[in-house]
Amino acid sequence: MSIIVLGTVALDTVKTPFGLRKDILGGSASHFSMSARLFTKVDVVAVVGKDFPKKHIKFLHNKGINLDSLEINEGDTFRWEGKYEGDLNTAHTLHTHLGVLSTFRPAISETQKKIKNVFLANVDPDIQRHLVESMRSPELIGMDSMNFWINTKRKSLLRTLKKVHIFVANDQEARSLTGDTNLIKAAKSLSKLGPKMVLIKKGEHGSIFFCDKFINIFPAYPMEKVIDPTGAGDTFAGGFMGYLSKAGKINETTIRYAIAYGTICASFNVEGFGLEKTSRLTLRDVKKRLAIFKNYIIF
Amino acid sequence: MSIIVLGTVALDTVKTPFGLRKDILGGSASHFSMSARLFTKVDVVAVVGKDFPKKHIKFLHNKGINLDSLEINEGDTFRWEGKYEGDLNTAHTLHTHLGVLSTFRPAISETQKKIKNVFLANVDPDIQRHLVESMRSPELIGMDSMNFWINTKRKSLLRTLKKVHIFVANDQEARSLTGDTNLIKAAKSLSKLGPKMVLIKKGEHGSIFFCDKFINIFPAYPMEKVIDPTGAGDTFAGGFMGYLSKAGKINETTIRYAIAYGTICASFNVEGFGLEKTSRLTLRDVKKRLAIFKNYIIF
Repeated sequence: MSIIVLGTVALDTVKTPFGLRKDILGGSASHFSMSARLFTKVDVVAVVGKDFPKKHIKFLHNKGINLDSLEINEGDTFRWEGKYEGDLNTAHTLHTHLGVLSTFRPAISETQKKIKNVFLANVDPDIQRHLVESMRSPELIGMDSMNFWINTKRKSLLRTLKKVHIFVANDQEARSLTGDTNLIKAAKSLSKLGPKMVLIKKGEHGSIFFCDKFINIFPAYPMEKVIDPTGAGDTFAGGFMGYLSKAGKINETTIRYAIAYGTICASFNVEGFGLEKTSRLTLRDVKKRLAIFKNYIIF
Repeated sequence: MSIIVLGTVALDTVKTPFGLRKDILGGSASHFSMSARLFTKVDVVAVVGKDFPKKHIKFLHNKGINLDSLEINEGDTFRWEGKYEGDLNTAHTLHTHLGVLSTFRPAISETQKKIKNVFLANVDPDIQRHLVESMRSPELIGMDSMNFWINTKRKSLLRTLKKVHIFVANDQEARSLTGDTNLIKAAKSLSKLGPKMVLIKKGEHGSIFFCDKFINIFPAYPMEKVIDPTGAGDTFAGGFMGYLSKAGKINETTIRYAIAYGTICASFNVEGFGLEKTSRLTLRDVKKRLAIFKNYIIF
């Protein structure tokens, strides 16, 4: 099985108490694919500008990511600049430059249209819907978003939500989309908007999964040192969706394991800047930490 | 086995989005004993004033709590007034009246001095140490505190810490006592100050337990409706210590179950004002919810 992910491939400038990195490879699709690749073949659908360094393309290619639908358009690559302070729980966006992203309309190949697993990482909900509608017979569609779209394109986002099976959101997004401060209520409300399954990520506090058959609640893997949390949510989604794609079936057991794998992949992501850690990750590393994690919550 | 708990028996005035309750029975020892009583005999060591309503004494007595060391002194009962807003995660203290608490020096009976399990709920660390030193041969001593003592009586608190086996703290207390924002680091630091075991409560985000042999991390039991969280931490401690007292031995299995029981007892506490829910609780109710909880985190 393989998975196709629509998202951003970006150049990030990040400042945390542990240092500053300028124009490093980032973006939702990049982070997602670093963890998803451990489980399945990954096709990225994204756009970059002519300024995008060739070494990054080579890097992604060497990681086994299919880049047939990575468009290189006239203009600048999407850039994000942010900083983290104190406990590194909140990203403060300093600057966003959309560049080529503002006119992006993904066009994928006939082969890619037949891929069964789809993840719509955070981009304009119009673009997300456009991709979904071009898929031939998708079996599992996951979707992420962010407050920016909730606030500016709510109607479009709600239309896209109706077309997906799993909505992956962080706690703030779940709250602002539903108006429920209580996350269990928010998850229930979200599941009535289209997606049968809702996964709410709470950063260092773990995650809540809700569907009509069961609930799953995991803490995060405890980290003593967080270097840079940028992309942790996308890495989580990549581990989660990647595992489900590999498993090839959706049931209580595979979903719980998928969440556990997502949790562990995200824990590696925060240990380094950008893709530093996740790009070197092996499934063996992940399984090793998963066993430790399991032992933290067993009784 | 039985347990002796030193703490407050208070009159609370609480305002939450769900209503206002004036002068209801509260205090750390009251909340602790409501959950601990489900597992073991509970002796309360506390003080109230002459104004303390007899109905509350009768109520505690009817719940099977031993009140031989509940002193009734000249003066006013300790009163706390607070309110909760929004997501009810933070208590805003509006007023505190120490009353008889300010001159309290507990004197317990010879029989009580022989009790093996001790919990020092949140009172002046001088008083906590005084009680510990009067115990004949304690086998398990747990301790709680609060920011007020960390800020005003730090040295005394550190002296008391050296005399206990388990330190139970909330995340804010753990951070301000150690200076570590990272909770795993904070737990490690705390375990070097005396207590071999550290249990950090994170409210709606669950708990982290740390000792040199293992780590346990549980989410909280998810609640759709939180009416009044006052005393949830003490109820958690009561379930935790109560279960350990009943188990009669401290090992990985009993500790994990004790934390799970504490988690569940706390979830009932927040469903009503004051002791409304926990006073009607049976071990059967708790076990039923524990089974559901277990299913949330299993994989």
